[in-house]
This record gives sequence, structure tokens and C-alpha cells, in this order.
Amino acid sequence: MFTSRLECPKCSATYACEEIHHLCTCGSPLLVRYDLDKVRENMSKEKVAGRPADLWRYRELLPVVDKENIVTMGEGMTPLLKLDRLGREMGMTNLYLKDEGVIPSGTFKARGAAVGVSRARELGVKTLAMPTNGNAGGAWALYCAKAGIECVVVMPQDAPQIPRSECAIANATLYLVNGLISDAGKIVAQAVKENHWYDASTLKEPYRIEGKKTMGLELAEQFGWEMPDVILYPTGGGVGIIGIYKALNELKEIGWIQGRLPRLVAVQATGCAPIVRAWEAKARESEFWENAGTCAFGITVPKAIGDFLVLEAVYDTDGCAVAISDEDTLAAESMLASIEGAFVCPEGAACLAATRQLLADGWIDPNERVVLLNTGCGIKYPETVKSNPPLLQPGDTLPELPASP
Amino acid sequence: MFTSRLECPKCSATYACEEIHHLCTCGSPLLVRYDLDKVRENMSKEKVAGRPADLWRYRELLPVVDKENIVTMGEGMTPLLKLDRLGREMGMTNLYLKDEGVIPSGTFKARGAAVGVSRARELGVKTLAMPTNGNAGGAWALYCAKAGIECVVVMPQDAPQIPRSECAIANATLYLVNGLISDAGKIVAQAVKENHWYDASTLKEPYRIEGKKTMGLELAEQFGWEMPDVILYPTGGGVGIIGIYKALNELKEIGWIQGRLPRLVAVQATGCAPIVRAWEAKARESEFWENAGTCAFGITVPKAIGDFLVLEAVYDTDGCAVAISDEDTLAAESMLASIEGAFVCPEGAACLAATRQLLADGWIDPNERVVLLNTGCGIKYPETVKSNPPLLQPGDTLPELPASP
Repeated sequence: MFTSRLECPKCSATYACEEIHHLCTCGSPLLVRYDLDKVRENMSKEKVAGRPADLWRYRELLPVVDKENIVTMGEGMTPLLKLDRLGREMGMTNLYLKDEGVIPSGTFKARGAAVGVSRARELGVKTLAMPTNGNAGGAWALYCAKAGIECVVVMPQDAPQIPRSECAIANATLYLVNGLISDAGKIVAQAVKENHWYDASTLKEPYRIEGKKTMGLELAEQFGWEMPDVILYPTGGGVGIIGIYKALNELKEIGWIQGRLPRLVAVQATGCAPIVRAWEAKARESEFWENAGTCAFGITVPKAIGDFLVLEAVYDTDGCAVAISDEDTLAAESMLASIEGAFVCPEGAACLAATRQLLADGWIDPNERVVLLNTGCGIKYPETVKSNPPLLQPGDTLPELPASP
Repeated sequence: MFTSRLECPKCSATYACEEIHHLCTCGSPLLVRYDLDKVRENMSKEKVAGRPADLWRYRELLPVVDKENIVTMGEGMTPLLKLDRLGREMGMTNLYLKDEGVIPSGTFKARGAAVGVSRARELGVKTLAMPTNGNAGGAWALYCAKAGIECVVVMPQDAPQIPRSECAIANATLYLVNGLISDAGKIVAQAVKENHWYDASTLKEPYRIEGKKTMGLELAEQFGWEMPDVILYPTGGGVGIIGIYKALNELKEIGWIQGRLPRLVAVQATGCAPIVRAWEAKARESEFWENAGTCAFGITVPKAIGDFLVLEAVYDTDGCAVAISDEDTLAAESMLASIEGAFVCPEGAACLAATRQLLADGWIDPNERVVLLNTGCGIKYPETVKSNPPLLQPGDTLPELPASP
């Protein structure tokens, strides 16, 4: 395929793609670089349009060399939905939802797992390990099962429950930790060193991001290779926003899109907003966020290893960073379901709350094309919805329907 | 569009499509008929191939007249996966999974809801009501929310929990009943009569099945308009199997597929197997199954109103009906996840158990093309997986990895 090298975005050191590499010697994550001239010659919009509706339709911009190594469950080309009812209510004419709940394992983590595990298989990996806030662990456990790779997962005790079932049924080795993902990360780092396992932690291997970037490729294709004005992304480790930014730059370089990139908005929770604090201070890196906590558990990342890349994507596109309270997030989750029928995860709902805030502030114009990136399905977060339905006995009649509000 | 009439498959009475109709005066469900000559003239495989990857790509074979009435969340064109690892283990060369977990709300019920709610909106419906084993209620609640239709749902107290959250967040009016779906059905029938609501019970309106039939259309397209040999389908109300059978006959009539239809297999649970019992007795209808119960809750239907249509589809295609124990179902769920990374619902897993049984019996040949229809994602059934991971403290080291089996 068309990968040319692994490159450090901090010190520009390069490494061979054919070898297993994790972080640069300077400590930064590595990014996959492609021979984009060759990609331009070998890939066309028409060719892509004729391929199956999954993320492998962009294979020239993906790092797997031999297609026999691809581990796929049909992930990708998730729906892009126009939210007309909600838009009307908010006075917006072009509000969209990219729904990553409609994917194997129910979250966008399937993209990183599909490409990351495929490439790990290609590199001959037998055992990999990772810390997770839940969904990445579930997705990697399932893709590893299909690939025949042993998978070791460490997640916070307070993470949502359903990913535990995914790990268990996939036969992964799962541990809980009485702490945050940062504590899980330290335990994994130590174990990886001792056991010579492949470290699949966020951005500690360069291929997960290549899977996540396909969200950007799909958005471009779904918008007819024209860019929306704003993309809001719930930011924990930030791989998705870095990936989207990378994807759009690659598409620009091969000439498939033109002009200004969309303004990228990093959405965080008021209970864990290191990127927002850094952005407000115009800093290039974030500080560790003490006592992190939010109902949007997936974005409880006190200090992301790729924080400088997230901030670069935000600064470079004239984007911004916004922190949302749990109260506003849960209200937005309700709005999306009751008005648009979309039962999204709290992380995705936070993007709607952020849009309302930025619209009120005048940062978003009511006629701009705005995309909420929902990273997962609400059915993985049943605990965010309260329900106490009345119990009937067989033969009962229904009480009169309460009047509509 | 190309609908011509509603027709009773029992007494052949016909009704106008433009009016709201439920059951035939003879008590049978009604089926939508199309002017298939016009469909043949106006629809082509090439046209379909160029459309978005959702079920509306088959719109000439769907009952919605004005596309403004379509209520969609991008449902359909779910993955068809070849199960090579599992196939090898079972000595089969052509084992496939059609994965209906990758769809809004996480189950195939989204298909019936999308088409049923769209058509209800077109017919001017303001309030609808339905009994459900859970997932249909969740899906219809969400699609109704998007359509602005009031939705009343009655489900068994013992149904899985997550659909309650879907109903609640969609603002549906939800009741539980201390009984089975048959008890819920009686309560809904009474309420519909008293309140003049639209009855959206299984097969009591003719459009849900049109949504479900798109599974058959997609299978045909995904197999390159050649038919597999066997399709196994977990059968409760049976709308899916009736729909697939209807779809394949319509495709045959417009000349898109030729030859023998696949043998359709109705898979049930030993704890609720009225169709299997009827098939073993060569009967045309089933008897009410007393004391029904199984972990595959979605197929706990003691007596389906469309039982004669399910049995017709099975008899006419030289199919069969198989009952699976909960133990075999849960073992199959585990196998699919640990070998193929597919975390399916128990209903879908029962199809794998049935395949093993039919293969052992010689009813399925190891080289036949066999499709397991998985009706929903496993993440909606976390209670079917046991998980008791060890708890670590920050700073702990991981114990040595247990040796692979």
C-alpha cells in the first residue's frame, strides 16, 4: 500500500512502517505518513463510491498492506442525519448528526479497533494490552478475538458496565482499577514493559488514529466532498479530533477537498476539561486535571498524551474548546431522543449542549453547516435514563393517556 | 409509488391502500401488494446500487408514497459477514452472519419501525399503541418521537431493561405488565378500541412487515442477486421470516433472482416453540404455548397471529423448524463472540446452535451457503454474560497472564 513512514509530529524523527514502533524517543506519539502522490494516482472518488459501505473503502489511505490481514465486522459509513426538527427548534437551518452508534460494538471505538487490530495482526502481534474508559476495551477485545490475538484490558471500576460484558464474552483478560484511566494506564505501561506485550494504549501505537480518521473521510464524502463549517467532537483522549484533522489535510493534499477546513470544536465536561483550560490560556499543552469526574465517562481523561495535537487541530482551524455541565449534557441527551429519535451517549449529547452555547454566544451562525459527532449509542448507557413505568396486571385496562404537553 | 392494494392472504379480500386498515374481516393480517410490472419498469439493479446504503434504496418496493413522509435514521444495509474462523471449526465453507445489531436502536426492529412509522405518518396517525417484548417498543418509541406521533407501549415486566430506557427517553407512554406479550396484547387491543388509537401490534397493521422484508432484499443484493441455500431466522412473531419470504417472491416476480428460494428455518427456544410443534405435526397453524419462557426473550411469543404465514414460508421453501435450549443458545453466543468477535443477542445465537444441530443431522450440507440472521446486538443483553474481573489498586502490578487454553 501507500504508507511511507512513521513520523514524529514533535521532533520530525522518522521510523520505518515495517517495524513495530510505539512512541518517538522524544516521547511523542507517531503518525503514519503516506506517499500521497501515489494515493492521488491510484484512488478516485468514483472508485471509492463503488465500494462497500464500510471504512475499508478508503484503503489507499489506510495502513494495512495485505488485505488478508483485515479484521472487519462491517464498521463504518455510519449515518449522517439532518436534524430538521431540532434545527427548527434552535433556529438553525443546517444541523447534522454523524451517528457513530450504528457500528459494531455501538461506538466509534470500533474504527480504531478494526484498523489497529488489523495492523497488529499484520505485524505479528500475539498479545496486546490497553487501559480504557470502557468502550475501547470492549471493541478491541472483540476485534482481537476475531484476529486470534490475546487482549488484556484494564478499566476504572466506575466505568459503564456493558463493556465488561464485551470483554468477558470475547475472552479478553479484564481487570478493574479503583481509580481513573490514568491509573489504569500506569498499570498497563508497567505490564507491557515486563511482559513484552504490544502497547495498544491511546496514541502509543500509530494505527488506531488511522481508523478514527475515517470519520473525517466519510464526512467529506457524505457532504459531497464539500466541507461543513463546524464539527463538534467530544474530547477525551482526542484521537478522533486529531484523526479528522489528519484526514482532512490528507484529502486537501490529494486535491479532493478545497478551501478552509471546518472549525473543530473540542467538547469536554466541566468535571474534566484540561483541553478547555489550555485553550483558554492559549497554551500548546494541557495540565493534569485533578479530581476528574463526569457522567460522560468516555471523556474522563485528566491528561491526554496527544493534547498538543488536539490543541493544534483546534488552533489551526480557528476552532474552540467548550466545557459542558452534566446537567446540560443530560438535558441535551433527552432533547435528541424526544425530538429526533436519536438515543445517543452522553458524550455525543454534550456536543448538542455545546452547540446551543456557541449559538447563543454568536460563535456559530444559525445558517452554518454544523455537525455533532455522536461517538456511541445511548443503549450502552441505560443508567443515564430514569424510567419508572406503572405495573399492570393481566386483564387491566389502560388509564387515560396524559395530555400532551 | 407502486402499491396497488392490501390483500388478505387467507380469504383474498382486498382493501384500498389509501385508507387505514388493520386485520381483514376474516381476522387475518393483510399484506401490501405492488404493481410489480411497474416496479420492473422503474427500478433497476444499477439504480439501486448507486443509492445510499440504507433500506430506502428499495423505495419502489416500499409503501411510502411521498418521500417527505419518510422517517429515517439511516437504518439498513447491515453487514453480511463471512464467518471463516467459525466455519473452519464447524467444517463449513460458507457460513455467513447478517448482523442486524448494526442499526439504530441495535435491533432489526428499527426496520419495521422506520417503514411502519413513516407510513403511519403518511396516513395521518396521531397516536399509536403496541405490545412488545421490548425491542420493538424501544424502536417504535424513538421513530414515533422523530415523527411527532404519540406512542403507547405495553411490555412484560420480565422483558430486558434497556428498551425501557429507550421508551422513557423518547417520551413514549410505557406500561409494564405482570405477564407475557400475549397479556400485553390483550390490554392494547382493549385500549385501541376505546381510544381509537392506531393499532401497531405485530401484523395488525400491514406496513411493519414491509420494513422487515428489506432484510431479504439486502441479502439478495449482498449475495450478488444469487440466493444462499439456507437462512436461519429466530422466530417469535415471525414478521421477519414472512417478510424475507415475501421479498424473495417479489424479486423473483420482477426477474431479479431465479431458481429455488433458500430453505427458511424457523428457530425457536425449547421453552416456547409453538411453530416447531406445528411443523412437526405438519399443521398449518400453531397452538398457544403454555408457560412460555426462555433467555431469548424476543422470541417468547406463545401464539403468533401470523403463524400460518410463517409455516407457509417454511413448507414452501422445504425449510424446517428447530427448537434450541437456553444452554445451547448461551454457548453459541459465547462461541460467536470469542471466535468471530460478534457479540450477538441470544435470539441470533440460537441460529448458530440450530445450524450445528442441522449440520449434525445432515439436513445442512457443509458446503452450502448458510446465513445466520442475528436480529440484534448483544450489548442490549448484558445480563446474558457473566463477568467478575479482579479489582486492582492504583500502583498495583498485573498478575501473570493465565496460559491460553
